[in-house]
Amino acid sequence: MNSKQEIINKIIINLNQIKEKKPLVHHITNFVTANDQANITLAIGALPIMAQHSEELKGILSKADSLLLNTGTIDEKKADILYKAAEIASKYHVPVVLDPVGVGVSTFRREIVSDLIKEGWIDVIKGNTGEIVTLIADQKINNDVNRGISGVDYLEEDIVKRNKQNNFYNIIKKFSFNKGLISIVTGKVDLITDGKQVIEIYNGSDFFKKITGSGCMAGSLVASFLAVEKKSMLAATGGILLMGLAGEIAADNVSGPGTFHKRLFDTVYNIKRENLQNTRIVIKNKQDII
Amino acid sequence: MNSKQEIINKIIINLNQIKEKKPLVHHITNFVTANDQANITLAIGALPIMAQHSEELKGILSKADSLLLNTGTIDEKKADILYKAAEIASKYHVPVVLDPVGVGVSTFRREIVSDLIKEGWIDVIKGNTGEIVTLIADQKINNDVNRGISGVDYLEEDIVKRNKQNNFYNIIKKFSFNKGLISIVTGKVDLITDGKQVIEIYNGSDFFKKITGSGCMAGSLVASFLAVEKKSMLAATGGILLMGLAGEIAADNVSGPGTFHKRLFDTVYNIKRENLQNTRIVIKNKQDII
Amino acid sequence: MNSKQEIINKIIINLNQIKEKKPLVHHITNFVTANDQANITLAIGALPIMAQHSEELKGILSKADSLLLNTGTIDEKKADILYKAAEIASKYHVPVVLDPVGVGVSTFRREIVSDLIKEGWIDVIKGNTGEIVTLIADQKINNDVNRGISGVDYLEEDIVKRNKQNNFYNIIKKFSFNKGLISIVTGKVDLITDGKQVIEIYNGSDFFKKITGSGCMAGSLVASFLAVEKKSMLAATGGILLMGLAGEIAADNVSGPGTFHKRLFDTVYNIKRENLQNTRIVIKNKQDII
Repeated sequence: MNSKQEIINKIIINLNQIKEKKPLVHHITNFVTANDQANITLAIGALPIMAQHSEELKGILSKADSLLLNTGTIDEKKADILYKAAEIASKYHVPVVLDPVGVGVSTFRREIVSDLIKEGWIDVIKGNTGEIVTLIADQKINNDVNRGISGVDYLEEDIVKRNKQNNFYNIIKKFSFNKGLISIVTGKVDLITDGKQVIEIYNGSDFFKKITGSGCMAGSLVASFLAVEKKSMLAATGGILLMGLAGEIAADNVSGPGTFHKRLFDTVYNIKRENLQNTRIVIKNKQDII
Repeated sequence: MNSKQEIINKIIINLNQIKEKKPLVHHITNFVTANDQANITLAIGALPIMAQHSEELKGILSKADSLLLNTGTIDEKKADILYKAAEIASKYHVPVVLDPVGVGVSTFRREIVSDLIKEGWIDVIKGNTGEIVTLIADQKINNDVNRGISGVDYLEEDIVKRNKQNNFYNIIKKFSFNKGLISIVTGKVDLITDGKQVIEIYNGSDFFKKITGSGCMAGSLVASFLAVEKKSMLAATGGILLMGLAGEIAADNVSGPGTFHKRLFDTVYNIKRENLQNTRIVIKNKQDII
Repeated sequence: MNSKQEIINKIIINLNQIKEKKPLVHHITNFVTANDQANITLAIGALPIMAQHSEELKGILSKADSLLLNTGTIDEKKADILYKAAEIASKYHVPVVLDPVGVGVSTFRREIVSDLIKEGWIDVIKGNTGEIVTLIADQKINNDVNRGISGVDYLEEDIVKRNKQNNFYNIIKKFSFNKGLISIVTGKVDLITDGKQVIEIYNGSDFFKKITGSGCMAGSLVASFLAVEKKSMLAATGGILLMGLAGEIAADNVSGPGTFHKRLFDTVYNIKRENLQNTRIVIKNKQDII
């Protein structure tokens, strides 16, 4: 059973590994947030690649250290590339993070996301409450849950709703266990589960809802950790914790979302051991993740 | 007949409505400025969606509160999506803002823009002097008018030219009246007309010409107002006035366009009743727009 | 034979010409860095166009003052547009800068880049060490050289490697001479050669590696100079020197890559004669380039 401190220590080691190894993080993502995702990946110390041509996937993935798939601004061509990329990544044992942006928007998105999961190609899935619930239910829970393009949950009341549903955690855990993947559910409190234990992260900032790409960038950070850390539960925790913490620091005394946005990159770049000691994480059903 | 103060009061009410209702503003836009448009939409308090797949339009527009169409970086596929989106929006009574970016660049763009207007699907059209004149004349007035990708008018002398043409206002008014839409013509002075009255806005900043996407972001703000305000003339005035005012505030004592750009989002996010009192608007041919 | 001072004087004249003439710089580029490239082009005083539709190329290039081709996020459709654009530019005598982003990633990219050079359509090629070496060898030198999406060289040791290879300069010079183009090789030290003389630029910042699009923006600046300066060697020197210098100034006492990124635009916008006096350039095999 790992303590909070053991997890933080391991995340610090991972951060150093990222800076040292400069792992290649391949992105198949959307045109709205690609620039921000490349910049956050560089800020943490990894190297982003954003090539989108299907003919280039094999060459890139034979050398990549992780793959991020993001369903924002999807069309048929991009859905094909997502599928192909995941398949090739699986052959080369490249770990895959899936960010099912706006999965509730259309049957089209739900199908490509379901297919990717069914094939067993996904190591970590990261979405907001609405996205993950939609995915599990394979239907829309309510009209609000899939609003917006960001991976950050727009709905203030979501966490309240989640707590009222006493079985929310059990549903997510069952989903993760059955699919054999790590689930990250972002919101006021971020949840991470491998189907057995649950980690709650209480760091974050309301400003995440006031910029586009918060969730997409969190995905890039998780993929950066996964590029150096084989234990997916730990990598997922590292990425989400760093994002929440960086948001919290960047929001301190900030004049607005434009400044917050810029500061996020500075903060991720400058993150220190001392900062990580300020994490507010709760480990439930403790089991070793390290 | 509404006074300047009545209009400002109504805009303040609209701003509060946007923050409260968080309306969905669907964007079909270009890859150069999409990130900025999503961020300005979030800064004002609305929720942007940027999905571009034709199969997803119906699902999204059945819930959207307004639609922004932008012709930047257009190709044939995108032209089809613009057309389809406007048609579906019309069925669902979703108000539509058209930003005919670079309409003078090609016959191709002029045709898609003309078609959208002819169908009667456009509630508000917003362009710089060159774009709107090109559109009305259905031909290029001179070699300069369609320069650049931004909706902001690059030509310092445009306003001078416009004033020399004593009939400029009459041409724009006639166009708006005949087509049954609100026209916004941006420049050193921004004009807004429903074909009967004209509102002039004297707020703004020369820095708008030094960043890409100023005009595109203005379109997103107009669409955000239109999502909560049925009177299109008032919504158009709200969006343009907020953009001009935010630019003016952001430019105050700024070190350059990079800082100006970042501050724009902060300023829109923080805009206050007091700021709106500093608007410099002139209402000509006064009639009730509220 | 031109002195360092003569070159700086000419670059200052070119900068003023750009601000005065506001030349049109057409970009066929990638969706990751397009926004940054448009903004840096505006910051220097030129006007960017980013239209990507093949039907619009003729109309735009008949009026454009230079063309930038960038192979980032390429697919088959974009490769066709790059080819067509270069062909049309050649007919209209519009000078062309080629930024072969990630040319080592795939045979596909190497072929389109080789074709563009073979046709004789390229005036200036700008890449990092890995890209240019790949291009010359038409094969990958090592697994590292083509990492990342940025034009900036990620490999600290590259310059060391280059110096060890005593014949590195001769290879680049021979390539430039045979192909009849200017080569820019970016790295810790930037090299510019027309096949006869070599200019080394020692300005720059390590932060260029911590943001995406540094190399892409350098390409936009070179294209902006080429829009007003017929001597390609001088235009290439102007663009690279301005980028290096702006990076150096922007990095001064900066808190991180987010702030650095924003400051770059401010610095390019505000660049002064005094700043240019601080350039560290070495002219080898001196010959007149002015």
